[in-house]
Amino acid sequence: MIIQLEKDIDKAFVDQIVDKLKSLGIKVTPVNTQQGNYLIGISGKGFDIREVGGLEGVRDVHRVSDDYKLVSKKWKVKPTEVDLGDGATIESGGLAIMTGPCSIESEEQVDSMIQHLVKNGVKIMRGGVYKPRSSPYSFRGLGIEGLKMWHEKAKANGIKIITEVMQVSQIEPMLPYVDIFQVGARNTQNFNLLDELGKVDKPVVIKRGISGTIDELLHSAEYVFSGGNEKLILCERGIRTYEKATRNTLDLNAIPVLKEKTHLPVISDPSHGIGIRKFVEPMALASIMAGADGIIYESHEVPQKAFSDGQQTLNYPDSDKLIKKMQATYALRKSLDLE
Amino acid sequence: MIIQLEKDIDKAFVDQIVDKLKSLGIKVTPVNTQQGNYLIGISGKGFDIREVGGLEGVRDVHRVSDDYKLVSKKWKVKPTEVDLGDGATIESGGLAIMTGPCSIESEEQVDSMIQHLVKNGVKIMRGGVYKPRSSPYSFRGLGIEGLKMWHEKAKANGIKIITEVMQVSQIEPMLPYVDIFQVGARNTQNFNLLDELGKVDKPVVIKRGISGTIDELLHSAEYVFSGGNEKLILCERGIRTYEKATRNTLDLNAIPVLKEKTHLPVISDPSHGIGIRKFVEPMALASIMAGADGIIYESHEVPQKAFSDGQQTLNYPDSDKLIKKMQATYALRKSLDLE
Amino acid sequence: MIIQLEKDIDKAFVDQIVDKLKSLGIKVTPVNTQQGNYLIGISGKGFDIREVGGLEGVRDVHRVSDDYKLVSKKWKVKPTEVDLGDGATIESGGLAIMTGPCSIESEEQVDSMIQHLVKNGVKIMRGGVYKPRSSPYSFRGLGIEGLKMWHEKAKANGIKIITEVMQVSQIEPMLPYVDIFQVGARNTQNFNLLDELGKVDKPVVIKRGISGTIDELLHSAEYVFSGGNEKLILCERGIRTYEKATRNTLDLNAIPVLKEKTHLPVISDPSHGIGIRKFVEPMALASIMAGADGIIYESHEVPQKAFSDGQQTLNYPDSDKLIKKMQATYALRKSLDLE
Amino acid sequence: MIIQLEKDIDKAFVDQIVDKLKSLGIKVTPVNTQQGNYLIGISGKGFDIREVGGLEGVRDVHRVSDDYKLVSKKWKVKPTEVDLGDGATIESGGLAIMTGPCSIESEEQVDSMIQHLVKNGVKIMRGGVYKPRSSPYSFRGLGIEGLKMWHEKAKANGIKIITEVMQVSQIEPMLPYVDIFQVGARNTQNFNLLDELGKVDKPVVIKRGISGTIDELLHSAEYVFSGGNEKLILCERGIRTYEKATRNTLDLNAIPVLKEKTHLPVISDPSHGIGIRKFVEPMALASIMAGADGIIYESHEVPQKAFSDGQQTLNYPDSDKLIKKMQATYALRKSLDLE
Repeated sequence: MIIQLEKDIDKAFVDQIVDKLKSLGIKVTPVNTQQGNYLIGISGKGFDIREVGGLEGVRDVHRVSDDYKLVSKKWKVKPTEVDLGDGATIESGGLAIMTGPCSIESEEQVDSMIQHLVKNGVKIMRGGVYKPRSSPYSFRGLGIEGLKMWHEKAKANGIKIITEVMQVSQIEPMLPYVDIFQVGARNTQNFNLLDELGKVDKPVVIKRGISGTIDELLHSAEYVFSGGNEKLILCERGIRTYEKATRNTLDLNAIPVLKEKTHLPVISDPSHGIGIRKFVEPMALASIMAGADGIIYESHEVPQKAFSDGQQTLNYPDSDKLIKKMQATYALRKSLDLE
Repeated sequence: MIIQLEKDIDKAFVDQIVDKLKSLGIKVTPVNTQQGNYLIGISGKGFDIREVGGLEGVRDVHRVSDDYKLVSKKWKVKPTEVDLGDGATIESGGLAIMTGPCSIESEEQVDSMIQHLVKNGVKIMRGGVYKPRSSPYSFRGLGIEGLKMWHEKAKANGIKIITEVMQVSQIEPMLPYVDIFQVGARNTQNFNLLDELGKVDKPVVIKRGISGTIDELLHSAEYVFSGGNEKLILCERGIRTYEKATRNTLDLNAIPVLKEKTHLPVISDPSHGIGIRKFVEPMALASIMAGADGIIYESHEVPQKAFSDGQQTLNYPDSDKLIKKMQATYALRKSLDLE
Repeated sequence: MIIQLEKDIDKAFVDQIVDKLKSLGIKVTPVNTQQGNYLIGISGKGFDIREVGGLEGVRDVHRVSDDYKLVSKKWKVKPTEVDLGDGATIESGGLAIMTGPCSIESEEQVDSMIQHLVKNGVKIMRGGVYKPRSSPYSFRGLGIEGLKMWHEKAKANGIKIITEVMQVSQIEPMLPYVDIFQVGARNTQNFNLLDELGKVDKPVVIKRGISGTIDELLHSAEYVFSGGNEKLILCERGIRTYEKATRNTLDLNAIPVLKEKTHLPVISDPSHGIGIRKFVEPMALASIMAGADGIIYESHEVPQKAFSDGQQTLNYPDSDKLIKKMQATYALRKSLDLE
Repeated sequence: MIIQLEKDIDKAFVDQIVDKLKSLGIKVTPVNTQQGNYLIGISGKGFDIREVGGLEGVRDVHRVSDDYKLVSKKWKVKPTEVDLGDGATIESGGLAIMTGPCSIESEEQVDSMIQHLVKNGVKIMRGGVYKPRSSPYSFRGLGIEGLKMWHEKAKANGIKIITEVMQVSQIEPMLPYVDIFQVGARNTQNFNLLDELGKVDKPVVIKRGISGTIDELLHSAEYVFSGGNEKLILCERGIRTYEKATRNTLDLNAIPVLKEKTHLPVISDPSHGIGIRKFVEPMALASIMAGADGIIYESHEVPQKAFSDGQQTLNYPDSDKLIKKMQATYALRKSLDLE
């Protein structure tokens, strides 16, 4: 059960409601986000909803039968829109395009990529400064100094930054320089990291776990939302299966299923989803027809020289073409009135 | 190695070539299909291709490094087109639409479905008369009598029939009444069935195994082709993974990967691929953008009353809409010059 | 519901019972096996079991809530024992050892293997004469002539033969020469083959499908049993997962789970289960402690020269040692009173 | 390449060696653990090993072709022994038994469990004070206060504590009260946590990831070892597959494979591996025959009342019996001279 409270509710009223709920045998978790105040009630037994609905300060009461609550579409039919400013948004029914290199490597690389984005009207740049690597002897990213350099250049060009945060202690130093925090596939169930990202007023993209279920992804989102942060986006990026002809198995089924279950935007990452450069284009377009609200893919001036993920990275001419084709596909989707 | 022989080659010349190959330490399998005569040579060692290429009766010699040979794109760049007559074709770069019920149930049902197809200009009807069922106590289909009834009605309306064949002994009785034999996901590696379908001059759709790899699907196609039947189509229908929110995981990655590896057409079955009625539409459209040459999906006048698979079956109004949207999506794909 | 009939029941009484059941809205399938006569009743609704139990000719009535019926432990607590004659049995709580080459290759090979078996007191020899191969250009076995040669030698030495049957048309010619038919992992859901094996009075080992569930394996067994053949054994042989360090993932969890659900014996195939010669021993012993009623593994005089599966095949000295260790492990299991 | 340095090597000599390596085009990572000093060299090209081996202060040089280096058996044939003091060890070829509840719940529970351990001569107690939970509304453990209470009681009875650490900031406060840090299956690739555990002089058990490969587990261990901590143990705990009859698929194949690849001890967790109480016993015994150096399983005075994982938890009488059977199985394994 989700109890939406009045925006300016008095603390005394909150206490009254909590007491009332407890007396009904309901376990209560208060949630205060940027956009509202809620009480989440978990109850084993049924009870008369009117006993709560009529209380002073209660705006609305919703029964939510899903195990996740705040991210469920059952109480919030209106889809969530994440506004990044400067005209950049990620929203249900839209098409947010995000591209950039796997790793931030140098000033020259960032300059070149920003030009590519500006030329194509793309407003969000991806790139890693902290890289999760299976071997401790691999390149692990430029770190916070790389992020500052990138931020300065991006800001000057109205470009928003999405980048991966790997641990709690990175959140605070990264905060001023990041527009969207990305939780990587290996951290989807790093619950402490999710808890802390709930306290931050910056959007968060949560990638589906390497072999995460759709349900687990929604529960991970519930962690961030119940921590206080409603600015959430989910990302399908391929799952681990027995098939080894591709890096991962992009599970496009997950897109319509997620959009049925949650009010959060859902994007797709075809680069990791298939892992082979020449097939990124069809999988990006397929993602759009499956209902994705955005596409995040890897590009680089010279993919062969990229520090990481070169085999799945597009060069600029291919990226130019892909952007045009994605826009045409999106235009078709809108005209067909899908979703 | 594939040695293409002249169409009207004399048997004596063939023997000469085979002797030559054996003397070079090459294991030879002769293959005679509706469309040509080949010798497949498997050799552990290298040798000078000119020793073979210059022989009388040899049209061309192709090195094929793939384990599968005849279905590989490495020797046959021109894609295979399967012509069913009456204007019905399945071909690379096309969009063949096939629909119908899971099971053929009655004359009334067939009449109604044929009307639905004719109205929409769809030329190929799917339906099962032999049903693979995990429980021996379930309905197993109307059998050969059902097929005859269906065939009579379909033929009268210029509709082609695709239906599943489950075992060798069914091939001969089914042959006069079937336009496309379908090999189901549980029979993808039923090698005896594949062998026998190689001897038949009717097109064959091979579905990917329940947890079959892309490579295994190509090898299964090699069985039919090397048995003598070039009229082959491959079908992605979802694979078994840990994710249980959907019936299967439709692996759209497989579509561009297969189309890179083989000259055979590749179609998609979104009904089995996701298993939930309302999500068949986005997955069908996504399949088209991923490059599918055809879509096969389940429809029924009253899905709730279908003998099987009702939960993933579209009713006629939804099927009407889907057909229009698929055609619009296909038109976009052609205009974008994908593939 | 399973209705056990009296052994010598009159046909008129059977008809009476069937009529009664139909009048109660129950779908009836009569099953006549080597060991008894049954009626399987499938009903959507509840009814008073006494209405059936009191009828003339009814020995017992069992409610079975599982979807599979005759193979369930819910009605038949006493485990099934498969007696092959000459002192060879496969039974719950026992340890049946079966070994031999992947493929039957030559008279010399069979002679040598039989000596190895006799020396170790092993009574069942495995070997393939029809080989399922993913490529049509691979060796497919010696066929029926190989089987006859093998049978003559085995019989002379009191050795029983287990070998794979791949299709319906092979059953009849193989019948006189086979002691146990094996259904391979690619045929676990070849329902026509299962149906036909139900009509045969020879034991059948059903291997779990390449990515088959435990439940599907039980359903496949139900096919054979309901076809008329109670002499059934189930075999865990590894499943397909994302892990590629081993050929398959031997799912030993399946052994106690199966033994809880069914009265049929359950054996393990560590050779295919791990696919690496030096690890066959620990996995065989682990299988015994997990509760396996038998072990089937591959051995060969010179594994490096085997036509197939050499990398997972033991030589004779290693096989000698394994047999002794399996016997010691089995003795411990019995002394611990497991199961 | 691993260069073992003399224990008391002078810093100047180290610099000399590093310079020499760099001049050969080798990337060098210095590693200083509790037990030795090493330089890890990664080189794309070959070179003459004698150029390094002869340098002052170099004890030995090992070529290691695996991607992981320090945890490989290729350089360190002698297995690692982890000594916890008070006679508790975890070592290759041994049998370390660890049991306890899923969650630490109360003083009474800890007292009761310690009695159970003492009675059975078990020296290591498991239990969670920080619980990873997929829902933010579930019980998340007693935290540091619970750990202190537990530690006091355990210490007084000579019992060692193994408990999960979920994030970097927990390490320092937990350090005085923990004997073995456990990295859970959701954190196997939490590289920051692994890095930090490398700096600690306490043993670490790393559980295999929920769908982690054997190779990834070894790489995760390499993180901790190269961070400075050699006291490492690996744990198989079941992987995620399509099979849903059990909680996970306990991959016992992984045990002999890991023991071939690494000098670290390998233990098994049958409780999570199968997830069903009555099947924990056979899977524990199977694990021992597969070569496990230890078993960790869940027990509780009243499993039905446990805060979490009750369905896979043994009560004391069953735990008593299991311990005896494990000891008997281990005695057999030793007598058979396995491994």
